[in-house]
Amino acid sequence: MPKIAAYFSLATLPLDREAEKPLHRQLYEKLQKEILEGRLPPGTRLPPTRALATELSLSRNTVGRAYEQLVDEGYLESKIGSGTRVTQTLPEQMLSVPGNDPATYIEEKPVVKKDVKLSKRGEAVVNAKGYYWGSGEARAFSPALPALDAFPYKVWEKCLHQSLRQLNTNHLGYQDVMGFWGLREELSNYLKVARGVRCNPEQIMITGGTQQALELITSLLVDEGDEVWVENPSFSGIQVVLQSQLAKLVPVSVDSEGLVVDEGIEKAESARMVYISPSHQYPLGVTMSLTRRLKLLQWAQEQTTWIIEDDYDSEYRYEGYPLAALQGLDTSGQVIYLGTFSKIIAPTLRIGYIVVPQELIEPIKAARRIRDRGQNLLVQIALANFIKEGHFARHIRRMRALYVKRQKLLIQEINKEGQDVLTVEPHAAGLHLIAWFKKPNSTINEVTLSQRLLQKDIDAPPLSRFAFNDLGRQGLLLGYSAPEHEIIAAARMLRIVLAEMQEQQ
Amino acid sequence: MPKIAAYFSLATLPLDREAEKPLHRQLYEKLQKEILEGRLPPGTRLPPTRALATELSLSRNTVGRAYEQLVDEGYLESKIGSGTRVTQTLPEQMLSVPGNDPATYIEEKPVVKKDVKLSKRGEAVVNAKGYYWGSGEARAFSPALPALDAFPYKVWEKCLHQSLRQLNTNHLGYQDVMGFWGLREELSNYLKVARGVRCNPEQIMITGGTQQALELITSLLVDEGDEVWVENPSFSGIQVVLQSQLAKLVPVSVDSEGLVVDEGIEKAESARMVYISPSHQYPLGVTMSLTRRLKLLQWAQEQTTWIIEDDYDSEYRYEGYPLAALQGLDTSGQVIYLGTFSKIIAPTLRIGYIVVPQELIEPIKAARRIRDRGQNLLVQIALANFIKEGHFARHIRRMRALYVKRQKLLIQEINKEGQDVLTVEPHAAGLHLIAWFKKPNSTINEVTLSQRLLQKDIDAPPLSRFAFNDLGRQGLLLGYSAPEHEIIAAARMLRIVLAEMQEQQ
Repeated sequence: MPKIAAYFSLATLPLDREAEKPLHRQLYEKLQKEILEGRLPPGTRLPPTRALATELSLSRNTVGRAYEQLVDEGYLESKIGSGTRVTQTLPEQMLSVPGNDPATYIEEKPVVKKDVKLSKRGEAVVNAKGYYWGSGEARAFSPALPALDAFPYKVWEKCLHQSLRQLNTNHLGYQDVMGFWGLREELSNYLKVARGVRCNPEQIMITGGTQQALELITSLLVDEGDEVWVENPSFSGIQVVLQSQLAKLVPVSVDSEGLVVDEGIEKAESARMVYISPSHQYPLGVTMSLTRRLKLLQWAQEQTTWIIEDDYDSEYRYEGYPLAALQGLDTSGQVIYLGTFSKIIAPTLRIGYIVVPQELIEPIKAARRIRDRGQNLLVQIALANFIKEGHFARHIRRMRALYVKRQKLLIQEINKEGQDVLTVEPHAAGLHLIAWFKKPNSTINEVTLSQRLLQKDIDAPPLSRFAFNDLGRQGLLLGYSAPEHEIIAAARMLRIVLAEMQEQQ
Repeated sequence: MPKIAAYFSLATLPLDREAEKPLHRQLYEKLQKEILEGRLPPGTRLPPTRALATELSLSRNTVGRAYEQLVDEGYLESKIGSGTRVTQTLPEQMLSVPGNDPATYIEEKPVVKKDVKLSKRGEAVVNAKGYYWGSGEARAFSPALPALDAFPYKVWEKCLHQSLRQLNTNHLGYQDVMGFWGLREELSNYLKVARGVRCNPEQIMITGGTQQALELITSLLVDEGDEVWVENPSFSGIQVVLQSQLAKLVPVSVDSEGLVVDEGIEKAESARMVYISPSHQYPLGVTMSLTRRLKLLQWAQEQTTWIIEDDYDSEYRYEGYPLAALQGLDTSGQVIYLGTFSKIIAPTLRIGYIVVPQELIEPIKAARRIRDRGQNLLVQIALANFIKEGHFARHIRRMRALYVKRQKLLIQEINKEGQDVLTVEPHAAGLHLIAWFKKPNSTINEVTLSQRLLQKDIDAPPLSRFAFNDLGRQGLLLGYSAPEHEIIAAARMLRIVLAEMQEQQ
């Protein structure tokens, strides 16, 4: 004769009738806990749903759903004529192992070994300097984020639905590490037409964003101690990744024509690699002149130097025509072109791409295979649909109009609220401006100002964060992708902070 | 007076009425091409929809939709009273750059530089031996794939919908590189209860599968030349990643109690790291005994050696109770525990996880930040919902029942069709069996047999693919996750291939 669970013990199960969590789910969890913790041992017969429902003042349906789920998961078994019982052999018969109660280890202090010996590269990555990743959250002035309030939820949902319907068994296993063919085709067409990139879909590798592209490429091509030209100032993602590869970073200045190629040649004529953002230099915003481009390519060809072209936001150009990508001018297959959807759609997608020179395709596939074996396919299919259906082109167009408006507002607000300290100029591209300090040796320091703003939840990094040395002038990066009211509020906060700082002097 | 596009040229646009692609889309693409290639120059006035519809024998609605999309994307502009014209300033005014015609570069021979100089690690990854990744597609006998025909489409779709509804602006930017907190909570609870793992959600890092976990950890902890114990035979993913890190692989035998710890100590007493799959050794299927586990942990503690515990398929145990994870026995925080959803749901998700020892959390975050800055969030939220709603537990239960059935079928078919060459035994866990060669020095070679089968689209890798030396016996890995009819068909094909090979001797 099996034991019968005392109605009493079950009737005292504390259910929270105000909670968001449905009652059947609460009951399910309580019963599961009772079973797992041995208070309802294997073989125990549970009260009939009607009886328990009455005891607990629940609907019979609620109790029924909790029982059903427990039966489904193997905690209970239900046989005609003998009612519902706790299963003889529980699926998670782990009663004897520690950690049974989910709460136990959360409270417990972690076990800590004294000295962690990392690998040389492990040490390098931990000690890398120059991290500026931006905050993950949308904050006024953040230069790292697009207008997240304009994320195309509905269209994206539609594209995801579509891609779920397209999914078949061949899509469920391991995929080509280069990425989903349909997306690579769309990108190849887009890049040829819109960016003048010379490529075919075979050359396109879908990545988890620009950062992954940088890590893959540098790991494949750069040895410890190799010289790599890096724009000064530049994107911290490349600085940190090169430090972690133990490369020798060679900072090269940027003037109004872009990277000063002569300076690079003087500093490191036989460098192994160059990192560059010629369409819209990050963070200064300069477009590299054609003369400089040709000079760079000629030198690179002579030295067989690799060039990473980071074309992170060239879709956002508000006047005139963009110069085509540097890659399109290259005839020797030495330019590795990078793009991303983080700035066009949203970072959360984790999708970017590399246009891989033909002879690097096999090596990069090998490197990718040992890393993560590619991106989630569903998201790639959805993105291919997004482009194919014209949503991508429409979204870019909509975003351009939005950023023109928000840039204008930012300029107006900063010139109003920035007092005598800061000045901003309109700029025909990108997602941020630089607010320059008016006096070259202002007594208000850009770093201090940035920190004060961060305390107010305003993410406006100082220019020096991206530079290798004192650039001789100070400025803050101000993104204008936040909603209008946030830009206005942040500009007002800037005035207040500036006033406080001036008083304190 | 603007030019008017000759009706004639548009009327000859070749539209394919049999194609899957809708006619409005075809028309859109043709017009876009005409515009981009300059045959419809800026300012050109297009025929009214009604007129073009008549000329092309299309519905007016079809023409209207094509025009509308082109207007949306800025190729055309429509003004009341002046009809529809090609925009004066095209959004993609790239007519002067090469690569304008999507077809051009696909045909063109790639530009190839003579000698590609890779980095030392680049060379190492390209030259790594032992690749066995399995085919991406579902093939009978593939040991690398779960039952893809049982993928929970409906439930997964539901979870994705749910997660789209949960998405807010804070989810769209850059996320915690450790992964989505809700998923880490669910996993932490699951691992404690089901696997006896000692962990809290802070320690869990969501990865793009086990492979990424292996690359991250080894890169962080293993230097060039460092000794690492690897099970012999073992998962090729770890072998290849260690070669790419230029580590010294120390193969250690596996017997009926699992890894032969004494042999490891004899070969490399002060090894830096051990890779092990104690719950269900890959590919032999052995469960490591408690004695061996304790011995391994004691030695590792003395030597401060890291242990990677790869618990890739412990959910699939069909009899008795699994031993808890090795990690749960470890009191010194040296075991790094890995799990994956590739075997429980499907590889296409690209989701796995690491239970990171407390003091490695910061270093691994730094390493991850320079790599890919985390996984797609939507998929993580959907997976958290999948677990929370009980679908995960139900799915595992359903899969267990399915695999029990399919394993039985496989054994029956191989014993019927495998002639006198092969023998298989039931096994209480996992997704594959080993079909052993009956005669130790059979004249039929396992490698040749496997290759012959692959020609017939059957993926049954030989044991030697996973081994560092001759193991003294031959066998093929036979997965039983394929649908029943495929298992039956593949077994018949096996009989035919065996018969052919025997004849040829």
